Formats: sequence, C-alpha cells, structure tokens
Amino acid sequence: MNDYKILDAKDIEFLVSLLGEERVFTGEAINEDFSHDELGGISRMPDVLVEVLSTDEVSKIMKYAYENVIPVVARGSGTGLVGASVPIFGGIMINMCLMNKILEIDEENLTLTLEPGVLLMEISKYVEEYDLFYPPDPGEKSATIGGNINTNAGGMRAVKYGVTRDYIRGLEVVLPNGEVINTGGKVVKNSSGYSIKDLICGSEGTLGIVTKAILKLIPLPKKAISLLIPFPDLDMAISTVPKIIKSKATPTAIEFMQREVILAAEEFLGKKFPDNSSDAYLLLTFDGNSTEDIEKDYEKVANICLEEGAFDVFIIDTDERKEAVWSARGAFLEAVKASTTEIDECDVVVPRNKVAEFIKYTTLLQKQFDVRIRSFGHAGDGNLHVYVLKDDLSEEAWKRKLAEVFEAMYTKSVELEGLVSGEHGIGFAKKSYMLEQCGCEYVGLMKNIKLAFDPKNILNPGKVCQ
Amino acid sequence: MNDYKILDAKDIEFLVSLLGEERVFTGEAINEDFSHDELGGISRMPDVLVEVLSTDEVSKIMKYAYENVIPVVARGSGTGLVGASVPIFGGIMINMCLMNKILEIDEENLTLTLEPGVLLMEISKYVEEYDLFYPPDPGEKSATIGGNINTNAGGMRAVKYGVTRDYIRGLEVVLPNGEVINTGGKVVKNSSGYSIKDLICGSEGTLGIVTKAILKLIPLPKKAISLLIPFPDLDMAISTVPKIIKSKATPTAIEFMQREVILAAEEFLGKKFPDNSSDAYLLLTFDGNSTEDIEKDYEKVANICLEEGAFDVFIIDTDERKEAVWSARGAFLEAVKASTTEIDECDVVVPRNKVAEFIKYTTLLQKQFDVRIRSFGHAGDGNLHVYVLKDDLSEEAWKRKLAEVFEAMYTKSVELEGLVSGEHGIGFAKKSYMLEQCGCEYVGLMKNIKLAFDPKNILNPGKVCQ
Repeated sequence: MNDYKILDAKDIEFLVSLLGEERVFTGEAINEDFSHDELGGISRMPDVLVEVLSTDEVSKIMKYAYENVIPVVARGSGTGLVGASVPIFGGIMINMCLMNKILEIDEENLTLTLEPGVLLMEISKYVEEYDLFYPPDPGEKSATIGGNINTNAGGMRAVKYGVTRDYIRGLEVVLPNGEVINTGGKVVKNSSGYSIKDLICGSEGTLGIVTKAILKLIPLPKKAISLLIPFPDLDMAISTVPKIIKSKATPTAIEFMQREVILAAEEFLGKKFPDNSSDAYLLLTFDGNSTEDIEKDYEKVANICLEEGAFDVFIIDTDERKEAVWSARGAFLEAVKASTTEIDECDVVVPRNKVAEFIKYTTLLQKQFDVRIRSFGHAGDGNLHVYVLKDDLSEEAWKRKLAEVFEAMYTKSVELEGLVSGEHGIGFAKKSYMLEQCGCEYVGLMKNIKLAFDPKNILNPGKVCQ
Repeated sequence: MNDYKILDAKDIEFLVSLLGEERVFTGEAINEDFSHDELGGISRMPDVLVEVLSTDEVSKIMKYAYENVIPVVARGSGTGLVGASVPIFGGIMINMCLMNKILEIDEENLTLTLEPGVLLMEISKYVEEYDLFYPPDPGEKSATIGGNINTNAGGMRAVKYGVTRDYIRGLEVVLPNGEVINTGGKVVKNSSGYSIKDLICGSEGTLGIVTKAILKLIPLPKKAISLLIPFPDLDMAISTVPKIIKSKATPTAIEFMQREVILAAEEFLGKKFPDNSSDAYLLLTFDGNSTEDIEKDYEKVANICLEEGAFDVFIIDTDERKEAVWSARGAFLEAVKASTTEIDECDVVVPRNKVAEFIKYTTLLQKQFDVRIRSFGHAGDGNLHVYVLKDDLSEEAWKRKLAEVFEAMYTKSVELEGLVSGEHGIGFAKKSYMLEQCGCEYVGLMKNIKLAFDPKNILNPGKVCQ
C-alpha cells in the first residue's frame, strides 16, 4: 500500500505562497464536480484543488509533492468516462483548465502549439480560419486537448484520419519529480530514442503532466457530404461495413445507430431526425477537395448498401440536415443517460469485420439478463459504445447484473481479438478487465514503466495498471 | 559495467539441441558481414550466430540467455547506418531473416500480418496485387520489416503518409525474459493502457524482439506523377518548399538533390538522369485516384516553383523516365559512398522551414573545415542526409575533422529545434549526440524504461540510451 503524506496546513501554505489564495481551494470551497468524472462509478474529493497558469507552477508543485510524497492528479474538463481523473487517494488536484492559450499556428510546418486546457471545440474553430484541419473528432467537444492526449481519444473520423496519437508532433511534460522535458517537436520524422511522446499519449495522467502540445494539422478538405442509409435491421447494416472497406472506398466516418437511440435523441433534443422509420441506420461521411472526387466514392458505397439490402440512401448535403443529423449523433450518450436512472459503458474495439457479431451478442445478453442494452458507435473503426441501463433495478441487482454482462462482453471481445478500450481508456473502472485480457506479464510491464517515470507513485496513483 | 557470462560449450550445446547444428554458427563459420552494419563505424563478431524459424525458438533462446545473463542481439538484413545491430558485447546473435513469411492479408480490415524477416520490397509487391498500399518507403528496399519497425523507418512518402509507426497496428514481441506478449492487434483504435507497441517501435532492438507484425494498409492510389524541377541554386530550391506546404498542396514526396550527387549517381549506375544541367533540383511526387485530382495539385506547385525562380518543370510520367529518376534517387547513398574512401552520415530532422538554413550551414562547414560534404534528402519532411567524405584524409585527420563537423551540425540542429535522428536511429554511433541534445534527465528516463523491460540488460546492450 502507498504511504502518502496527509496534507497539513504547511502544505496549503506552500501552495498559497506559490499560487496566491485565489487559486487554492480546500474543504467546502471545492465544487463537488471535482470529485468525479462523467461515468467512472467512483468519486472522492481532493484534499486541495489548485489552478495553474504555467509550466513552472506545475513543475514546482510536482517537486514539492515528490519531496513530500503527496499524491497529485491533473484534471481537464472532467469529461472522462472511466474515472481516470478521480483523486482516489485524495491529495492535490491540479486543474489545468486555465492553461488554455493557443500559442502559435505555424503555416509553414502545419503545426498548432497550444496549452493543455484548450477545448477541442476551440481548436477546430481556430484552425479552420487558416483553411487547416485537426482531424480527431471525439464526440465530447468540451473536452480539453490535454485530456484527449491522455486518453489517446479517437472519435468519428478515425476511419480515414486516425486518432489523437497520429496528430501529436511534440509534447512538453512535467515529470513526477518536477523536471520538465520536451519530447518530439515540430518535426515530421523522429527516430531519436524511445518514443516517450507516444508513451505519454494514452497514459491517462499517470506518467507525466502535459503542459504544452504541438499538434499536426492538415489542409482542410473543401467538401464534405454525409449519407444516411436506413436498413431493415442492425445486423444487415453493420455487415455491410466490411464490404465498404473492402471496396477501397475511404469514408471519413461510418457510424451505426438504431431506432431506439434515435428516438431517445429526438426526445432529448426536442428536434426531429431526418428519418426514424427504420430499425437501423448507417451514417457515413465523405470528404475531399472536389465534389466529383467525393461523388465517385459515395456512389460506389451507396450502391453497395442498396445491394446489401438498404431501403434507401439519403444524401445529407444542406447545412440544416447536417446539423439535424450530427447534433443528434452528438447527443446519443446524453440521451441514453437521460432515458434511465443510471448507465455504464463498454468501449470495446474489435476488428472491423467483427462488429456485427459483437452487436448480435449484446442483443442476446439483453434477453439473457433481462436488462436494457443500447449501443451506437464507430462501425467503420470497430469501436463500439455499448450501454447497460439500470432502469428500475435495485442497487444490488444492478451491480450484480452489470458485472455479469460486462464480464460476458469483455470475454466476447477477447474471443473476437478485440481490446478492452478503443478510446475511453482504462482509468479506474476498466482495470480488472484489462488485467484479465492482457495477463499479469503484460500489465506487470506497464507497472514497471509506471515506476520508471514515477518511482514514488505519486502521480494519479491507482489507475490503468495499478 | 555489465558482467555477462562468457559463452562456453554448454551454451552452444543448448542452442544446437534447440535449433539443430545447421542453424548454429561459431568461429570461422560466421560470415564477417554479421560483425557490422552499413555505416555504424563499429564492428564486433558475435560469439555465436543462430538462425530462428519461430517465436517459440526466440522465446526459448531469450529464456536461456536471461537465466544465464548472456547478451543477445537480433538482426535483420544489417542495412542499418548507426551500428544498432552490432553485438558490441559479443554473445548470441539471432538472425531473424528466415522468419520471412507473409501470414495473412485481411481485405476486410486492411491489414497485413507478417514475420519480421520479410523484406520491404516484398511487401509492396505483395499488397499491390490486392490493390492495396503500404506507404512507408525507405530508400533501402532490402531492409526487413522488423528492422524498419525497430528504427521507425521513415522514407520519402512521409510528407503525405507518415512513417512506419503510423502503419503498425499490432506486434508480437518476445521480451528479454523470454515471455511473449501481444500489443495492439487488428483494431483501428486502442486506448487500453500504455502503448507498448509504440515504445517497441523505434527502440532499435533494445526492449524486445519483434516476432510478428500486423501492418495497416490503405487503398492503392491509382495514379502517380513526378515533377523534376531545376533551380539555379539549392537555397532557392529548398526555400520554395515551405511555400509549397503553405499552399495546402499535398505532395507525396519532396526530395532535394544537387548536381554533384546526380553526377555521382550517373557514374555509379552508368545511366543518364533526365537532366543534369542545373545546380539543384526538387523532385516531387503526387498521387491520387484521378489524373484531374493530381493535376490541380501539381499545377499549383509547378506555378509556385516557377514564381520562385525555377528554370523549368519536367513532368515525369512515363515508366522509363520514372525509372531513370527514382533509380538514381535510390542510388544516391551508394554513389556517394563509391565516390570516396569512407563516409559518415548525419540524419538530422529539422522543422520543414529550417531545411534551407541547415543546408546553407553545411556549405559553410565544407569551406571552414576543408572537407567534402554532400547532402540530399527529404526536403518535404525536414529530414536531411548529410554525408561527410573522407577522401584522402589521414585516419587521424578524418576522425578529428568528422567529430568537429558533426558537433557543429548537431549543435546547429538543436538551435533550429531539430532532433538528432529523423529515421536512421541512434544505435551506437549517435548516442553522445542524443545525450548532448536531450540531457541527462531525458536520457535517464530512457534508461529507466530500458530497465523496466530488461532488468538484466541482456538485450542489445550498449545502444540508444546506454
């Protein structure tokens, strides 16, 4: 077990001397929001919450915490879903949200340098004015880029453009001992030693605190179009996806959705979806530099879908229809949440041609365990978001059922050569499933890596592999 | 210092019992080639060389070596340039070249599963028959994919497509203690714990031995065209590149070359280059799915080049001209080597808009140190290959001059926010330069990571960060 120092008045005094009283919060002054994220199933208040404005402040806090063996958690917007930012051992929580400046856009190197507290929604708005594009597109636009880097966030456009990791050129990182390192840079290639940058990315705040990032940008595609394609049933819809991939078409996104989830989103938003008469839908986007170029691709895909049994193909090309479709898609999680008392989520990723089989299995589980299960997600990249709904189950029945259903789903994902998490991370909530899948040797290696960075185990302890 | 076991008859006996006599070589039976790579400036024979056919064999060898504290180096084609595969502590060398099977092409998931000994040239040939494309394109086509993964090889197409790391979906790895792990898989997204896959990639054989890889493929672009663009001088040519990038054009490759290097290649190959009358050239490639699509892009770029002072723009669209240009480009390293007694290379990478400044500096160094310096490389991604030529210098003068010139170049690269190696790695030869640039704290972190994987320090010791 960890033997952390219990915070006392002297520690608070140090933090106040560094940051001023207005950026140090204790006791009642800490908003309850800081004790949990959006779905991790765990909460605990930090002993002290501080707001930082600079790398130097982060470095000094870590040096102090390292010397005094105090646990520290860095937090962005708190939009995580696996409890990764919950300070389960108390200690110091560093709120990174005020480090939110865009520092430089470099049009000759196609990079954006920024602080970790910048929100995802601000990045796209900012770079598009320069005709540039930051492709990663997770649903939660109020997440910080620091949080996105720490979970290696994915999003809808991974089919064509990849994930957050693919767009990180360089990072400034404060190590657990307070030292500041720079890894990577504005450079396109890098074979200069172990890729610490890629290790920090996806480490969920356990190896270092990202205080600056250099992102890769690409030219903004000039045209985009979406297709909404109704199918008689979900199996038929999803089974079409590997055929689309095999056809060499390159859609930007391929999402699947079911009628129940669309209805929930309509109710939640008070807005109509362009169509809700069918049981299942694929929603595809194509982008490129010319209409002709996109047309060729989407016509091919439309024909494949019709051959495979789609009822129709709706072209979503007006701003109004795009807004209707994508705002609904963006509201799915909140809509599902609002439709029941409590939910928990399984974020597995399986090879793209196994999605249909996995979803079919969750339908079986729904019957077998007599519990509502809702899913939507990224059919094009194999990353599913499967939600188990509590409804009117008792707390005890819910916990038992949830554990059984999760166990079944994660076992199935292993059978299909999938992994525990596609984009939401391991955090606190999925640790046991990762251990089960990866085994002691593999997780032991992660533990060794954690110790290589953080020998006193003070930075976000109890997460990922611990 | 390391206290390794000296190999004795019992060890050889173990290896023979595992692999049979025909795959275990000692003493005179070991070809001298195995003592060095192509340019690392260091050589040492292994005590025993073994050929392996399976993961299981590699695992058993590592288990034995781990128990007995014997150093092990895994080797592919030996085409490295920094001595990474030289067994500087002797011990066991594992030749991976017989593990050279392509195991599966999966058209629904767009992946290729293969053993590490498959050669780069075989991959492109194989996947193109399925209309698929493995974009990384290092010059040395007889390198193994295992070697490419271990150096995170880059190549010419990084401008548009990225580097080897961007195309690794999953790895099977034998750890120094002989355990076998799988990291990643066929999945597109992965946020399941620390990215051990990305750490192995680029680790130059020091953290584990790759025994299987799952590569990401993309649809094969249907059309490609090259432009050869003569300029009055190199500075003018290279200074045009950031303007091309800024224009939002997306060439696949932007190479720069000088007359002297072209003449050397002509002599080396006994073949004419399409044009050798100008002092400097840019060679660009564009690819895409339709001629119209490519045309728009290359016309824009051609106009930029002409505005910036290019003499002309030659379109290289026949197979014959393509072959003439790209075979010359592929022969540059060998041609420079053949033009002198000995060479050494600096593989720095700088931000793309700093290439001109760096090259101008090497021209100064040439005069200042009275030594021939030749360079060519990837103007589009900032990765330069700068060669210092020994010519008729005495061994002593050469060593001294080389050290001084290298020191000056690496210092300059730091000043320009570059890194020690863009694609050739650190290995043995560039260790001191990485340490100088990154500092003790950063390299110390790498040492800790090395220990996390290899507590007895038996796998390729003395490389990268040691």
